[in-house]
Amino acid sequence: MPRMGRRPGPSTTRTMITAAAAGRFTAVGYDATSLRQVAADAGVDPALVRRFFGSKEQLFTAVASAVIDPARALAAVAEGPVSAAGERLLRYFLSLLGDVSQPGPLLGLVRSAVTSEHAASLLREFLAGELLPNIAVSLPSERSGLGAALAASQLVGLAVARYAVQLPPLTAARTEELVRTVAPVLQYYLTGHPISPKENS
Amino acid sequence: MPRMGRRPGPSTTRTMITAAAAGRFTAVGYDATSLRQVAADAGVDPALVRRFFGSKEQLFTAVASAVIDPARALAAVAEGPVSAAGERLLRYFLSLLGDVSQPGPLLGLVRSAVTSEHAASLLREFLAGELLPNIAVSLPSERSGLGAALAASQLVGLAVARYAVQLPPLTAARTEELVRTVAPVLQYYLTGHPISPKENS
Repeated sequence: MPRMGRRPGPSTTRTMITAAAAGRFTAVGYDATSLRQVAADAGVDPALVRRFFGSKEQLFTAVASAVIDPARALAAVAEGPVSAAGERLLRYFLSLLGDVSQPGPLLGLVRSAVTSEHAASLLREFLAGELLPNIAVSLPSERSGLGAALAASQLVGLAVARYAVQLPPLTAARTEELVRTVAPVLQYYLTGHPISPKENS
Repeated sequence: MPRMGRRPGPSTTRTMITAAAAGRFTAVGYDATSLRQVAADAGVDPALVRRFFGSKEQLFTAVASAVIDPARALAAVAEGPVSAAGERLLRYFLSLLGDVSQPGPLLGLVRSAVTSEHAASLLREFLAGELLPNIAVSLPSERSGLGAALAASQLVGLAVARYAVQLPPLTAARTEELVRTVAPVLQYYLTGHPISPKENS
């Protein structure tokens, strides 16, 4: 985040509010989060949250956008050789999830979506509205929409199984081992190409 | 469920309590569920719930076991040609999830695990204690534990993305389309064999 000098400027305030909201969504889910609490956590007036973001719906979408960063996610897939698109997407996603013992706010989005139909519909709009279609058209695939959605499902499942349920083989696996095993699956979903496991050790 | 005559016998009562608990876990998650509410939903005395199941922890594990049915899940993988193990596991799992508009209690387990560390640890013990290791040893794979856990992650992700977030390409896809695309992935995770899409249309 760029530092703006001694007094926080609008973009710093925005970032602080978004971070506070991400924390709330992660801790208590979408339904139990209020703009008033988010404002208190960010140390700002509730009216400011409302002025910047409008409603809780818009705040949630702003958090999703800040956490997932559609432009970076799309760049991860589209920039570089197609043959490694799945690997790049997986590495980007694992970097968002962070350390197994201290998962980042991405898990909070999943948690909110699983517990609130409202949050689920906001996340659906966010993913299905632009990000997944843009990923789909950036790649040569006969499956287009379905493939990108299945890639997303594998990533969400990894988030839940590794970071929430913490299945031991997944928490024990290092990034390189996950990349070696899971990247071919994302590659297959994204491009439709049959893929062999990566051949190095 | 076997009918026991006019008066419900112990196994019917057990089934009723388990169903009531599954409904509560699905609706409000693990933490907000109480044995008293479950008893009320099942129309029995709370003392009976306690006598049958002991604690909320044991009740949750009983629900997980009733919903996932480890013996049937293992049979789905192990009984029949190895070359179709992934497909059989996927079909079994999709049958548990049920209709997209009316998901079954399996989604409630995922919801509980994502929102409660306690429920997550119970589900982890349930999956990692017996089911996944048994699945792993039933198959020829160099990956054993990691492969079974990754197969589980793909299934959990499908549950979240299709039934909770309801991504349109996934809700629109018919069972046969999902099987054609996802079964090769489960097969790859379970056996370590290269992914090749199923060849019929």
